[in-house]
Order: sequence, then C-alpha cells, then structure tokens
Amino acid sequence: MKALVYQGPGNKALEERPKPVIVDAGDALVRITKTTICGTDLHILKGDVPSCAPGRILGHEGVGVIEAVGPGVTAFKPGDPVLISCITSCGRCDYCRRGMYSHCVTGGWILGNVIDGTQAEFVRIPHADTSLYPIPAGADEEALVMLSDILPTGFECGVLNGKVSPGCSVAIVGAGPIGLATLLTAQFYSPAEIIMIDLDDNRLEVARRFGATCTINSTDGGAVEAVKAFTDGRGVDAAIEAVGIPATFELCERIVAPGGVIANIGVHGAKVDLHLETLWSQNISITTRLVDTATTAMLLKTVVSKKLDPTKLITHRFGLDDVLEAYDVFGRAAETGALKVIIEASAP
Amino acid sequence: MKALVYQGPGNKALEERPKPVIVDAGDALVRITKTTICGTDLHILKGDVPSCAPGRILGHEGVGVIEAVGPGVTAFKPGDPVLISCITSCGRCDYCRRGMYSHCVTGGWILGNVIDGTQAEFVRIPHADTSLYPIPAGADEEALVMLSDILPTGFECGVLNGKVSPGCSVAIVGAGPIGLATLLTAQFYSPAEIIMIDLDDNRLEVARRFGATCTINSTDGGAVEAVKAFTDGRGVDAAIEAVGIPATFELCERIVAPGGVIANIGVHGAKVDLHLETLWSQNISITTRLVDTATTAMLLKTVVSKKLDPTKLITHRFGLDDVLEAYDVFGRAAETGALKVIIEASAP
Amino acid sequence: MKALVYQGPGNKALEERPKPVIVDAGDALVRITKTTICGTDLHILKGDVPSCAPGRILGHEGVGVIEAVGPGVTAFKPGDPVLISCITSCGRCDYCRRGMYSHCVTGGWILGNVIDGTQAEFVRIPHADTSLYPIPAGADEEALVMLSDILPTGFECGVLNGKVSPGCSVAIVGAGPIGLATLLTAQFYSPAEIIMIDLDDNRLEVARRFGATCTINSTDGGAVEAVKAFTDGRGVDAAIEAVGIPATFELCERIVAPGGVIANIGVHGAKVDLHLETLWSQNISITTRLVDTATTAMLLKTVVSKKLDPTKLITHRFGLDDVLEAYDVFGRAAETGALKVIIEASAP
Amino acid sequence: MKALVYQGPGNKALEERPKPVIVDAGDALVRITKTTICGTDLHILKGDVPSCAPGRILGHEGVGVIEAVGPGVTAFKPGDPVLISCITSCGRCDYCRRGMYSHCVTGGWILGNVIDGTQAEFVRIPHADTSLYPIPAGADEEALVMLSDILPTGFECGVLNGKVSPGCSVAIVGAGPIGLATLLTAQFYSPAEIIMIDLDDNRLEVARRFGATCTINSTDGGAVEAVKAFTDGRGVDAAIEAVGIPATFELCERIVAPGGVIANIGVHGAKVDLHLETLWSQNISITTRLVDTATTAMLLKTVVSKKLDPTKLITHRFGLDDVLEAYDVFGRAAETGALKVIIEASAP
Repeated sequence: MKALVYQGPGNKALEERPKPVIVDAGDALVRITKTTICGTDLHILKGDVPSCAPGRILGHEGVGVIEAVGPGVTAFKPGDPVLISCITSCGRCDYCRRGMYSHCVTGGWILGNVIDGTQAEFVRIPHADTSLYPIPAGADEEALVMLSDILPTGFECGVLNGKVSPGCSVAIVGAGPIGLATLLTAQFYSPAEIIMIDLDDNRLEVARRFGATCTINSTDGGAVEAVKAFTDGRGVDAAIEAVGIPATFELCERIVAPGGVIANIGVHGAKVDLHLETLWSQNISITTRLVDTATTAMLLKTVVSKKLDPTKLITHRFGLDDVLEAYDVFGRAAETGALKVIIEASAP
Repeated sequence: MKALVYQGPGNKALEERPKPVIVDAGDALVRITKTTICGTDLHILKGDVPSCAPGRILGHEGVGVIEAVGPGVTAFKPGDPVLISCITSCGRCDYCRRGMYSHCVTGGWILGNVIDGTQAEFVRIPHADTSLYPIPAGADEEALVMLSDILPTGFECGVLNGKVSPGCSVAIVGAGPIGLATLLTAQFYSPAEIIMIDLDDNRLEVARRFGATCTINSTDGGAVEAVKAFTDGRGVDAAIEAVGIPATFELCERIVAPGGVIANIGVHGAKVDLHLETLWSQNISITTRLVDTATTAMLLKTVVSKKLDPTKLITHRFGLDDVLEAYDVFGRAAETGALKVIIEASAP
Repeated sequence: MKALVYQGPGNKALEERPKPVIVDAGDALVRITKTTICGTDLHILKGDVPSCAPGRILGHEGVGVIEAVGPGVTAFKPGDPVLISCITSCGRCDYCRRGMYSHCVTGGWILGNVIDGTQAEFVRIPHADTSLYPIPAGADEEALVMLSDILPTGFECGVLNGKVSPGCSVAIVGAGPIGLATLLTAQFYSPAEIIMIDLDDNRLEVARRFGATCTINSTDGGAVEAVKAFTDGRGVDAAIEAVGIPATFELCERIVAPGGVIANIGVHGAKVDLHLETLWSQNISITTRLVDTATTAMLLKTVVSKKLDPTKLITHRFGLDDVLEAYDVFGRAAETGALKVIIEASAP
Repeated sequence: MKALVYQGPGNKALEERPKPVIVDAGDALVRITKTTICGTDLHILKGDVPSCAPGRILGHEGVGVIEAVGPGVTAFKPGDPVLISCITSCGRCDYCRRGMYSHCVTGGWILGNVIDGTQAEFVRIPHADTSLYPIPAGADEEALVMLSDILPTGFECGVLNGKVSPGCSVAIVGAGPIGLATLLTAQFYSPAEIIMIDLDDNRLEVARRFGATCTINSTDGGAVEAVKAFTDGRGVDAAIEAVGIPATFELCERIVAPGGVIANIGVHGAKVDLHLETLWSQNISITTRLVDTATTAMLLKTVVSKKLDPTKLITHRFGLDDVLEAYDVFGRAAETGALKVIIEASAP
C-alpha cells in the first residue's frame, strides 16, 4: 500500500509499504478513506518528537472502513464506517477509568508516533473497541475528520479546561487551526465575548467570520492593553493559549482576570516564566492537557444536530498520491491560507 | 490604647495610640481579647509589602468583643463575642457574590495592611456584618484565633484547591504553621497518604504527630526520588506549596502525577520556571489563591463538633505588653519551636 | 400614588395609596418605570398563597429609578436606573452566603407577597445593595423586566438544575412564559435536541420559532411514546417541569433517561406519585428550587452582548391606569396569545 | 461443584452443578474463596425480582482466584487473586464511558440475577478486565468481600450522591448493613453530625460504636421532631434512605433542610408520595442510583491505607456446606445480630 513515511528530520516520502495485519485480539484493520495533516506532523518532521523514529508512517487522524477485526473486538465488524481517534485507549487502566485516555498505559498518542499512522491506505488500530467511533448513517465524513483530533483538542484543552460559560469573556491566543477549533466550540457555551489574538490579519479575518467578537493583531506589542481596554480593565475569565511559545503564554498571564483560568493547548518546547510574584494572590488556575478525546461522542452529536459545522476548517483537498503537495500547502499556511487539508486515501 | 506599630523596614514598637472610632455605617469597633502573629507580619517588617506604610498597626487575626457598631450593622451588637476574619468583605460586589472575598473591591486583605490591624486593644472592622463571625457559646476562643487566617488559608488554598479526596495522595512542601494547618484540614477528606516535606526534622516530627503518613527531609536533594518511590513512581495527586520560593514550587512541578494539581499557598517574591516543555501534556492544574475565608463558618462547625482541634498549633502565650518578645520567639521559630503564639490583649 | 391592590380571593383594584418611605437603613425607594404580571400573581388572586394578605400591593418584577436610599445603602444613589430582583437578599445570612438568596432569613420572595410590591408608582426595596442591579447605559429596559423573575427562574430552576449541556437532549413540559424562558436560556448550552411539550398548538408554534427542535402536543396521551421515539428509546437527559401539576411531573418521571435529571420549576399545590419502584435504580436526580436570582448579573451580560433577546417574550403593553385590562389579557392567555405584558408605571 | 440455587419463591438448595466454562473472549473463570449474602438475595427468594429465574445460582459478591481466562482478557492470568464487583461492566458502551457501569448495555447487575452467581465454588465473570479488581499483596480478603457491593453501594448511592462534606449534617434512615456501610464511608468527609435512625436499639448501639453522633429510635413516631431539635430546627443537609419503603422515604422528605439532598439507596417495591406542595420551593435534590462500583479502586486504597476497616461489618462465618444455615442466621438478623456473614467456598 501507499503511505507517507517519516525519514528522519527534514525528510519524508510517499512509499510503498506492506498492508498492516491484526496483531492483538483487540486490533482492527481500517481502510482509510480520508485523513489529514496536523501541526504535530510538522513538529515530527522538524525532528522535535524523539519518540517518533524514522520509518514511521505519519498521521493520527482520519475516517475509514473496517477491513478486519481481532477476536476480542465486539463493537465493530468489517464494512463498518468508523472515525479514528488520535488517542488510543484501552478503557480499563486507571487513567482510562478516569477519562484520561491520553495517559492510557498501553495507548495514548501512539498513532503516527510510536506505531504506524493514518496517512496510508490502511492502518492497524489497537484497542479498537475503545479507540474507534461508529459513523452515523448520513453523516458528512469530511466533517468527521475534524473530530479525530483538532476539535476535541480545542474543546477539551481550551474550552472545558477554560471553564467557558454563558456571559464570560474569553481570549484565544493564536488563530491557527487549533485556535479556530477552540473558537468554534467555545460558542457552545455562549460567552459574552471571544477575543482572538494573532499576528496574521488574514487569520483574524477568518476568526471574525467564525464568531470572534473582537480581534487583536498583537504585532505592535499592545495586546495586553487592548484586552484590558475591552474588558473594563479586568482581563478575561479564560485565556486560552493555542501557540506553544513563552511569549504567548506570558501574554495569557498578563490578561487573565482574578478568578480566571489560563488553559494551555500549545505544545511547548521550552520552559516559560511564571510570574507568581503577582499571580500568587490572583485566585487563578493554569491547566495543561494532552487531548483525551473523551468528548468525541458528544461532539459527534453536535455535528449531527448541526450545532457545529467543522467543514468550515477545511480549505484544501488532495489525493493520497499528492500528499507531498498537501504537506507543502499546509506547511506554508501564511501564504496559502490553509487551515485543514483533506487527503483522500481511497473511495468511501 | 496600646498597639504594635510598624515603623518602617526593620522597626516596630509598642506604642500608645488613640482608640479607633466608627467611621462608616457598616463599621464595628471590636475590643481585642486574643490575637496572634502571622508570617506575613514578618514580611511587612522586612519591607516586602509596599502597600503597608510606616505607622500602621499590624495584625489581621484575632477574637474579641463588640464595643460599638455603626447604624448599618444588623448582625452584631455591643457585647457580642466575635471572630475577626483576616479578609474584609462587603458581600455585595461581583467578587463577593462569587465567594472571592479576597478580591472584594472595597475590602480584601486590608487589616494590618492598608488600615490599622488587630495587634492592639481595639480595632475598627469595616463591613462588619460580612467580615465578623459570631462565636458560639462555649467555644474555645484560643482555638478560634486559628480561624482568622491560618486554617482557612491551608484549607482553601491547599486542600480545596488541591482537590484532596478520599484515597488520594498528597504532598505538602513546607511544614511551617501554614503547612501544618493544611495537614490538619487535609484529613477532613481522608487521603490515603499525606507526605510532608521540609528541611527541619523537628517540624517533620510535629507533622508525624499531626497525621502525616510519611515525612521527607529534602536537605539532601533527594525529595523527588523519595516521593516517586513512595507513590509507585506516579507522583502525588496534590502537591501543595506552602513555602513561597522557586525551589519548592519547582519541586512540586516534579512530583505532581498526571491529572494532579499543584496548589500554591506560598507568598512568592520572584517568578519561577514553569516547565511546560514537560508539563504541557500532563493534564495538570496549577492554582493560586489569596484566602477568601469563604469556609470560616464551615470550619467553625468542625471545631465545635471536635473534628478539628486547632489548639495543636499554639505553642506560646504572651500578654500584649510582651508583644515584642512574642515577635522575637515567633521570628526564631527554628530555635524556639514556635508555631502560633497567642497574644492576650485584654480579658475576655 | 396609584397601585394594584389584592383585595382577597377573586378581587383586585387600582387604588390610591400613600407613597412608601424608607424604613430601614438598607432600604431604597424606587420609582417604577415598567413592571409586569407573573403567573404567581394569578395564584395569589385565586387565594392560593396564604402568606399574601388582602390589602397587599402586588408585583415582584420591574425596572425603575432610585428615588431615595437609607443611610446603609452604598451601591446606589438617587437617579440611578435599576433592575428589581423578585428575590430580596441580605447578602450576609448563611443562605445568602451559599447563593441561596431565595431562602434569605430576612428576605426571599417577599415583594408583592408579605410586603408591598411593584405594580405601583413607587416601591420600597429592603436590602437594596444586594437586591437591585444597576442598569447599564444603553440597555433596553423592557428586555430587563424579563430579568426580574422569568428568565432567572427558567435558567436556574430549569437549565442549571437540569444540567443542560452541549449535545444533550432536553424536554420542557409546558410552553407558557416560564417554559419559553427555559427554552431560550437552554440554548446557552447548545443541547442537541430541545423537545417542547404542551396542549396548545399556538404555544408550540411559538416554541418552534424560539428554537425547539421538536414539539409534541400531549393532548392525545402519547407524549411518552413520542419522546422515546425521538430519542432512540432512551428518554431525555433533562426533563424540565414547567407546569406544576401531578400529570406533568409524572410525565417527566416517564421520559427521563437513566442518568438524567428531572428539574422542577412548577409551583405545585398537591403531592405527586414518585415511582421509586422503577426509578430507584435509574441513577436520576430530581431537583426543586425557588429561583435565587443568583445569575441575574450573568444574564444581564448575555442580554447586553446580544446572546439573549428577552423581548421575544413580550406580547402586550399597557399603562398603569389600564392594569386591570392587562390582568384580563394576561389571564386569558390561551385566547389572547399573551406571554408577558409590560405595564408602564411612569416615564423612564 | 457445589452451589446455592434459587428454586423459585421461598425455595433454595445447595446443589451439585457443573463447573462453568469460558464462553466469551472477555470471560474469566474464578474459583471463589469467600463470598457473602446480600439483602437482595433475600428479595429474590421472596420472589420479588422477576428477572431472576428459578435454577439460578445466587450471589454477586466475593473474592477468589483466577482459574482461566478467555483470549480477550489482558489484565488477569490464572492464579491472580481477584475481587469480584457486583456490577459487570464492558468499559466501552456509552454508559460505561460515563462511569454509569450499572447501566452497561451488556452488563450491569447480572451476577446471581440473569447469569449464575458467586455462592458456588466457581463463577464465570464476563467482561473480566473491567469487572474484576486485582487484590493487593497482603490485603485482608475478608475485608475486601465488603467491597463487592455493600461499601460502594453505601458510598456511591448514599455518601457521594448525598454530597456529604466537612461540617455538614447527615441523617441515615436504616441501620442495617447498607446503612452502616454508609455510616462508615460518610466519615471520609468529616461531617459535623451523623444521625442514625432505626427501630432496633441493638443496631443503633452498633451505629454509635461505628461513629454515629446521635441515634434516634423512630418507633414512637417522633423522629422528625428529634432531628429538627438536634439541628436547630433546620433539618439535615443529607437525608440518606437505606430501607426502601414509603414511610422511611417520606421521613427523609420531612427532615431534609433547604438546599439539602435526599439520597435514596433503598430498593423500593412501591411508589411513594412526593410532597412537592411543600418541597417545590425548598431547593432540594433527590437522587436514585443502582451502585456503579465506580469507586471500588478508590475504596481499595482506603482499606489498604487503613482509613476504612470493613471487617467491622462481619459478624458470622460459615463454610459453603453450611450456606443454608448462613441464610437462616442472616435472615433472622434482628435476633442473631447478623450484619454480614462470610461464606468460605474454598481455601485461599
């Protein structure tokens, strides 16, 4: 089969690889119909994710059709259309019992990282019963690709951890795909204000179309003052970090109101300064989270009931043969305007 | 009247000052019977609290008897025995409505800071209806002095923010009075393990008597390994910081388990390094809080019903005439073994 | 001044009464600009509310302007435009500290019940600092009249107690003003389905316009089956009772899903049968609540930020001189289509 | 093998039955070492549980040793000592994902009900990975038998649902084994008062030894007044029903304070009167729950760390050959003083 393979820092190729097979009783083999590329895949390609070794098929998102299942799988059978979660979960370890699937002792984020992933014609999914979701009849499969990772990430790490609630004020720092997924799902809770902060006016324009009530281009260094001006000097109830660098996290420290939350989504590569000399008395919380995909079933309901339209996030489409071009377009997002790109791996 | 007055960094004196008077409709004048000294008073004396100007009467803890009330006070009358909260709260601003009394827009921590405090024969208490608590008949007044600040601080900032719960594991870093108050109130929730970490073997011995299930002297730098060894390599569900310096906060970052909480109590004077490069994916929370004294009424019930014996924290007693000696004994706690010192300002 | 006075069961009149005066230090005197009639006023007129004695001026909703304040009032001054809460709250008793303003020991629902109310040119409001809300500049005063009672009631007793959340299913039994207020505020949380059940097709048509995803006329006795059919046989996550009779409560018992909530809003005059022989094992909750108006400030923000448009509920307008006609129109709602009627007591 | 078999209403026998075998991939075969009898077994024997057909081996509690596992089982292997949960859970259906194991679509309470149970030498356990718990080395196996059902039932349905918290007041109606298990686990949260109500002075004496702060014999009909007298007229924050008849539930309705919870544990056979004409405005909750055993792992930690000693509940011990005598002693609890009886089915 064809697959996009990581070949070490800076290198990738579309290779011919053997079709995967069932290994464990709980495995399913899934024929991929649609997949996509994540910012994390770009991190891997830069060499920033040591757990991912050269030779690995990338990708942890997608939808497909069950091709085969192991003897321990009870919830799925060949032919079933399924949504693949970026998080593999056994459903039985202590962490899974607590809904912390991201820390499953035999799962977590392993797809396209420590086992082969979804940017291929087929993929093996361990713990299939608790890591796949049935696709309801009539659902838009492209929309559901957004449920593998980006929407639960924005929702769980940003919106839920940020305790977004009716009437509250929210700032989202970073208007990339994750920040925009946060913006879309934050509206489930009817906050009074959602302020979007980025350096790129085009993305801020997208944010306005997606429902931001205020946008701030932080290029000039005046973001803190602008947020304070917009919130009667108080700051925001939820400051959501969706970039992953010290400057944006420290911006969140400066705009969070007393009693508020800094909800970190960004993947950080370096420590940040935490200004406890001012924050110790401010009754704030800071949260971190690797997405658990514990809300995937709920998000599915909101898509089916039209409360959420994830296709807004899709800007480009490619065939698997053109996956290298897809990477190029996704990697040059500032120029191409790419948010999420769909890769069609096989006919539905 | 006699009062302990801050005279600028390094200086204090027992002075003769005019008896305070009712200023606002909501004020009460309280004759102090017993008060105490807080670690924060020592911070003020070092010059670390710029909001506290020379000439200020110190102290934000104590019990006493109502001497007079303003026309807007409805809950108290002269002769009523009362517990003074370290936090003044109007009960009507947005923050007070949310239970965040510490951020009351006309209150918060003002006693012995921006208005005169309790280390005196009399004190004026603004917003008396919502900042004083009636003392139940038969209650031990010395015990209640511990409810002005230290017990709600340990309980709210440490135990509640730390989400201490039955069967969980807790580490408290710092076995001073606040750490020990946290230890006492953590036991309300029956955690499986409470690990106490300090540099002073005497305080760790006290901690064992107060209910710690494990004590670690961190002098040798091996605290992280010791905590991990004691928790099957996982770390603790709640890491409670009760010191206020970068080293102890960073210790908490290293011992918190995935899904756990770092609950900061310490008053910090400098920023700390937050290692988001490892913590971003650990599903942790970090909380800060200036005590709201929102649980004072509940803590009173636990004292009255004998679930909590705060007198364990009292090691020394002085008259107000000897308040300078009391400061000396409290300031040299490592040598004197002082935890909390009672100062008797007048007969009950 | 003119005032609508309860004269015993079945009787009311527009009378000339003395203008009220400040009695307690915390009182405010408010000149009413707009008020409205509540279903509870009709209950009083039927003689169903023994606490309300003949001679009482009715009404517990409205907006107005501060005319005078007692010496203990600090948050308001003459000339301030204010929203009146149907619940009077001292802000300092145990219940108020817990946000249960409805059970305030010197307040609760007293306006137009045990003290004179708002269907008059002036009203005395006790505990003014904690029972009135400032009206933001530019706000629509008619919209805010809906915040005195009906919207917090639907939201607190129905939506919050019902734990309405994104993706869940909700049934609201009763499409009168309170049920419709619940429908409007339920949408703050983006439930997947909101099923509205009533006997009146006109009200169900209104419900569809207000956002119900399904309406059921229960006249034929088939409501349980219809709800089950609409929810794949499970029933609803939140069954909200907004009528107040045994039949509608027992309908809720039959349509609530395992793990769901029955949130009672209705004012009941008789006991109901609770079928514990089936419900004991269904992991459900049943909640009751007299509105606390603890969310008034939050609801104000959602009105100002246009997340909520309460004017949808207003169908008729009258002057105070025509208040008897207003009662007539409101009392014959099935014929007149009345939801909420505005009564203009004086110019703004 | 030997097994206690239900033979229809009023009849049971110790029979010789074939040893069970692995049927599904997720099954485990467990050799029972110790089991016990539940009040529910007595209900079955009266003919009150229609789902349980004659011929069924009874019992849903116990500890044992893994004899064999199906190919889908990954967490256990032959020889492992295990605790059996009374609730069978697949870990993957919607209800299991929400922690509502009692409503697992292929599990729930099936042991000794719709499939053969544990009062035998061997038992087949479906969904073994998520329905058994490993027994820690050195744990007291008799103590753990109490974790199969009675302790999680008291804790989840009574203590957690009742929101028992530090300083609150609790009444437990019914001092049988379930009520006493509730009493033991309520103390995890340090309530100020635990009032125990029963008709049997002997059981009330046991309750006092187990930590009740007040006991009330309700034979004279004065229980409501006695509770009110003990709580300054307010009633209790948590009224926990542990009997299952209308009279005791209605007692709970009369003693719950405004803002409190009625947590039902009892298995009811008939409807009860719910007095909404008084309760509609009292801001109370009523909860029902079939135990989910979602807290079993946590309770295990509290037993291992000595916060909980379940052996207090064990009054008698029998061999499996004497199980009929065990039933007799357990069934005449008022005379024999029996709480829980241990039945040793095989050597450990």
